[in-house]
Amino acid sequence: MVKAIEWVGAGLRLLDQRALPEQECFIDCADWRAVEQAIRTMVVRGAPAIGITAAYGMALAARDLPTEDPWLALDEAAQGLALSRPTAVNLGWALARQHAVIAECRTGGASEDLFHRLLAQAQAIHAEDIQANQTMGHLGADLIRQRLKAGERARVLTHCNAGALATGGFGTALGVIRQGWSEGLIEQVFADETRPWLQGGRLTAYELAKDNIGVTLIADVAAAHIMATRGIHWVIVGADRIAANGDTANKIGTYGLAILARYHGARLMVVAPTSTIDLNAATGHDIPIEDREADEVRQFRGQWVAPRQVAVANPVFDVTPAALIDVIVTEKGVIEAPGIRGIGSLFGQS
Amino acid sequence: MVKAIEWVGAGLRLLDQRALPEQECFIDCADWRAVEQAIRTMVVRGAPAIGITAAYGMALAARDLPTEDPWLALDEAAQGLALSRPTAVNLGWALARQHAVIAECRTGGASEDLFHRLLAQAQAIHAEDIQANQTMGHLGADLIRQRLKAGERARVLTHCNAGALATGGFGTALGVIRQGWSEGLIEQVFADETRPWLQGGRLTAYELAKDNIGVTLIADVAAAHIMATRGIHWVIVGADRIAANGDTANKIGTYGLAILARYHGARLMVVAPTSTIDLNAATGHDIPIEDREADEVRQFRGQWVAPRQVAVANPVFDVTPAALIDVIVTEKGVIEAPGIRGIGSLFGQS
Repeated sequence: MVKAIEWVGAGLRLLDQRALPEQECFIDCADWRAVEQAIRTMVVRGAPAIGITAAYGMALAARDLPTEDPWLALDEAAQGLALSRPTAVNLGWALARQHAVIAECRTGGASEDLFHRLLAQAQAIHAEDIQANQTMGHLGADLIRQRLKAGERARVLTHCNAGALATGGFGTALGVIRQGWSEGLIEQVFADETRPWLQGGRLTAYELAKDNIGVTLIADVAAAHIMATRGIHWVIVGADRIAANGDTANKIGTYGLAILARYHGARLMVVAPTSTIDLNAATGHDIPIEDREADEVRQFRGQWVAPRQVAVANPVFDVTPAALIDVIVTEKGVIEAPGIRGIGSLFGQS
Repeated sequence: MVKAIEWVGAGLRLLDQRALPEQECFIDCADWRAVEQAIRTMVVRGAPAIGITAAYGMALAARDLPTEDPWLALDEAAQGLALSRPTAVNLGWALARQHAVIAECRTGGASEDLFHRLLAQAQAIHAEDIQANQTMGHLGADLIRQRLKAGERARVLTHCNAGALATGGFGTALGVIRQGWSEGLIEQVFADETRPWLQGGRLTAYELAKDNIGVTLIADVAAAHIMATRGIHWVIVGADRIAANGDTANKIGTYGLAILARYHGARLMVVAPTSTIDLNAATGHDIPIEDREADEVRQFRGQWVAPRQVAVANPVFDVTPAALIDVIVTEKGVIEAPGIRGIGSLFGQS
């Protein structure tokens, strides 16, 4: 499995996911500003991966602290990283964990050990994420197994890339698919290509093909036809932010797939670590949705595919109401019908 | 309005729609084989436009008839053109009209005047199509008006390109939108970009922008989010073949949009001339669905956007059951809830 995020002696090495699948290029980030740029320009993407990357970014900020106003420099880095992408809550979650370390050192007045402590915590966040993915992989595969008739294998559809490339490794939605495939529960994976960035074709198909998992790529518009003609058991996706009531922001198109799944009797499984849950967002209405540049739709790799001046709406996430989600899988457990039971129970809330 | 299909002295001039919107290139077809290739390779596309083009193709075949076995040569041309695309029924309809002229001449044993008679009929088919589009434009605009509250204007969404470029001129779905816009009934048009060929961005946005109609381009995956957040009154699309029960084959993605429209309370209007209706197809199950090459999804203008060997499903049409269609607009009249009333009434059937 290719390593999308790796700490090397000199800094953070990121796989440039924009060049996949044709080229495996790496970008070395020597300071937090390079990390911020990498997140903003989508060298790295996927909510958990963004959080991990930002955590390493804070370690880099601490390595290069000026003697004058070191805490101010750290604040600046934290703010810059926090604003690099608006929708993924894992970003804020990882920065908050780093902030706690900073606050502790600051109280003690000692900044010399800060770099090593922030680096150690970034690495811990990274390792925990992989561990969480593996746990979710088992939980999700169990759900697939429970609904199969004897001798049957599942046909699943996934959207965007919620795989090893979007996380610390292994993947959320693709972690479940990896685990389910290895247990012989899955017959075929359909991957939406996922415009405008084509993460499905460039990343998901690449990841799954690399692991010899049977994947068929489709244009996004073919999903309904595939559901009607091939029969899909599960739509399995990741998440960028989950509100307290279970409403889930994920890659644009997820909401439409949720409606299509319900119409065709397919079940929708959202797979995300609890760091994706934002208890401060009561419902999906409280989740900011990122709108990106018009040229992401009007151009394709520098070629114009639409009139140069045409208006574009380019929301890159949408919100799927909890009522359309059959199950949310986290590393702390499974929530069936999240609209009813609610998310709080994972955090010990009544 | 740009002319996509034009008879010039030397043959048939086709706008190469693959090069739009950046380049307006024309391809001159001097014989029927060039016409067949143009249809097959999507120089020209859109069900009515394909029918008109094929009719001109038969005229070209008649112009170059060999003295030996002229009728055999005509049969060969008719068969070649008939197989150029499988889903649009207008193709077979136009060829059948030309065949009637050929049969008449053949009975009389005279082939010398055949070219002029076939050309005249191709031009008549072309002119009738434009006339039909204008009639449908008025009928569709009336439907939009009837449902508007006082002072309200409609937000509509369209898919693929069912415009001047897909027809003899003016358009089917875009004919209704053109007419509705000119009457001040429409506030905003959202155009799906329509992968994999991007007809929405390249053709629909181009056509509408050229006529100063307010259009916003979106990735296909954004349609559900736009319906939920902006409020869409009508989804307006063309058709490639309509079965006797109203089931409608159209560009892949239409079926999904129909489900999304129903979910959000938007109405679905299918706009197509009666030449698109195939009474020999009892239901959508009888409509052949074209699967095109994998590389249309794996590549983009020669660049790989997915692993080179990954499996692809590339159906380019889907079938929307009549029950999801609110109204079919033809030049002969409007059919509300086509699943109930049926199509036969347009043809004087009980």
